Amino acid sequence: MGAGEFDLIRRWFTRAPRHPGVILGVGDDGALLAPEAGRELAVTTDALVAGVHFFPDADPEALGHKALAVNLSDLAAMGAEPRWFTLALSLPASDEAWLTAFARGLWTLAEYAGIDLVGGDTTRAPQVVVTVTAAGVVPAGLALRRAGARPGDRIYCSGDLGGAALAVRARLAGRTPPPAAAARLDRPTPRLELGRHLRGLASACIDCSDGLAADLGHVLSTSGVGARVRLSDLPLHADLAALPETEAWDLALGGGDDYELIFTVPPARGDELRTRLAALDVPVRPIGVITAAPGLVLEAPDGRPYTVARTGHVHF
Amino acid sequence: MGAGEFDLIRRWFTRAPRHPGVILGVGDDGALLAPEAGRELAVTTDALVAGVHFFPDADPEALGHKALAVNLSDLAAMGAEPRWFTLALSLPASDEAWLTAFARGLWTLAEYAGIDLVGGDTTRAPQVVVTVTAAGVVPAGLALRRAGARPGDRIYCSGDLGGAALAVRARLAGRTPPPAAAARLDRPTPRLELGRHLRGLASACIDCSDGLAADLGHVLSTSGVGARVRLSDLPLHADLAALPETEAWDLALGGGDDYELIFTVPPARGDELRTRLAALDVPVRPIGVITAAPGLVLEAPDGRPYTVARTGHVHF
Repeated sequence: MGAGEFDLIRRWFTRAPRHPGVILGVGDDGALLAPEAGRELAVTTDALVAGVHFFPDADPEALGHKALAVNLSDLAAMGAEPRWFTLALSLPASDEAWLTAFARGLWTLAEYAGIDLVGGDTTRAPQVVVTVTAAGVVPAGLALRRAGARPGDRIYCSGDLGGAALAVRARLAGRTPPPAAAARLDRPTPRLELGRHLRGLASACIDCSDGLAADLGHVLSTSGVGARVRLSDLPLHADLAALPETEAWDLALGGGDDYELIFTVPPARGDELRTRLAALDVPVRPIGVITAAPGLVLEAPDGRPYTVARTGHVHF
Repeated sequence: MGAGEFDLIRRWFTRAPRHPGVILGVGDDGALLAPEAGRELAVTTDALVAGVHFFPDADPEALGHKALAVNLSDLAAMGAEPRWFTLALSLPASDEAWLTAFARGLWTLAEYAGIDLVGGDTTRAPQVVVTVTAAGVVPAGLALRRAGARPGDRIYCSGDLGGAALAVRARLAGRTPPPAAAARLDRPTPRLELGRHLRGLASACIDCSDGLAADLGHVLSTSGVGARVRLSDLPLHADLAALPETEAWDLALGGGDDYELIFTVPPARGDELRTRLAALDVPVRPIGVITAAPGLVLEAPDGRPYTVARTGHVHF
């Protein structure tokens, strides 16, 4: 780490850690973390690249939020409680205003989620690349996984879908998206509390980052099952109400960037789910059922199978 | 993660984990790792950007090696034993030959170091960016740190310095570097075994990634001390022998990319150090002494202080 980098990281990205388990944070060759007895560590990494994952002129404060949020969403999907993260930040130049705004977005979410920044690397690059690696803890054996869905399990979805995709479409067309849809794209809310409340109850869970069809597809393939989803039950973002229904479905099923949780619960435990959800301020809807027959069947309101026009983000 | 990415990661970057502590590796929302009783986790992250940290036409196999090696070097500097890492890989295109070679370099070193790849993210980007986050374990309380050097402590350096900087200079001038110097730049060897053997003995340690002057400078500033280094004792890379001595010193002091360990040991424990080193195949040389007076004094053979012409890599 060069002197310039070091100063950068110190100025914007050093704060006293909140968790006593952070023995050594930013500023050495690495961080030192104490293990927590009886808990496993959940670890995830996600990179955001300018021009691929966000518009090059994106609000840096929103980007700081989102770079951490997408990783927190993975921790939420495992039922983990956030503990620490590292940040690798590549920038074309050291722009103080940009860095101040980026750090503000990052720290605001970090403090909300109770997660400590414990290390980083700042480098020059032709365009902005933000890579966050985040870790959380979960009681041993209780992490939510993609595998585990069984035929008959009910499929649930938190919040609503398609808003982020609507915002992307508007911006690509040079239009200003509706504010609520733009907020879904720019400042997604990781469903951390919901994830924790699903431990020991959900048979499988994933966060919806690439569109419901792709992400539920991962649950189905790793669990070795299929699913039927009723399109009339999809929780569509309010800004999709004006669209023809097939367009709205396609945005919800294939659009991505929603960061809601998709999870399955055995039918006998529906009451327990409702009891747990009553303590939370997160809307959750049943959208379908797991089947023994492989494949994802999307049922239109007329009962006919529907084929989604887009699938999840494919970067190659 | 889109379908394309998912396939990519599965093809090149999925292998059965070696450590029983890896409960869940690549393929879910995140990895699940079991804690090890009585051990702390050392975590580091480093990004390599094409055109900044390596030449855009760099051998992908060497790049796969180096992206992991620079992180393992940080673990070595903390005395940690490698356990797991994540890989965020941004690429202009999905080039099968490039990925195969990159993965070969990565896996060869990963197997040598006994470290498991537990998660990743593959994205498109205008140029190659490789971000690795690596974790190792160290017995509680025994991690090597930058702070801890005390006046009178002897300063030591492993291996030799300046070879990587010589290779960079040659390539920037369009010349082919000598093979040994090129190997130092392209395939650095993390000093993992040495780092482990310094636990409970070295008062401070850092890996030399930005040049001796900058990296020793971090030890001095965090320890609140100064140092005198005798330039005649610097372990210069053999390919520097033909250079004027000031040029050789500047490459060793300011060049970077050597990934040797710089560490300090109390004078009363010199014999213990020699005993421990006898078990290892790593050359180590004393190069100076820690002083109470702050600042780094470089002593030329004629006794006069020397000022280095270059300092470490500064990315901004």
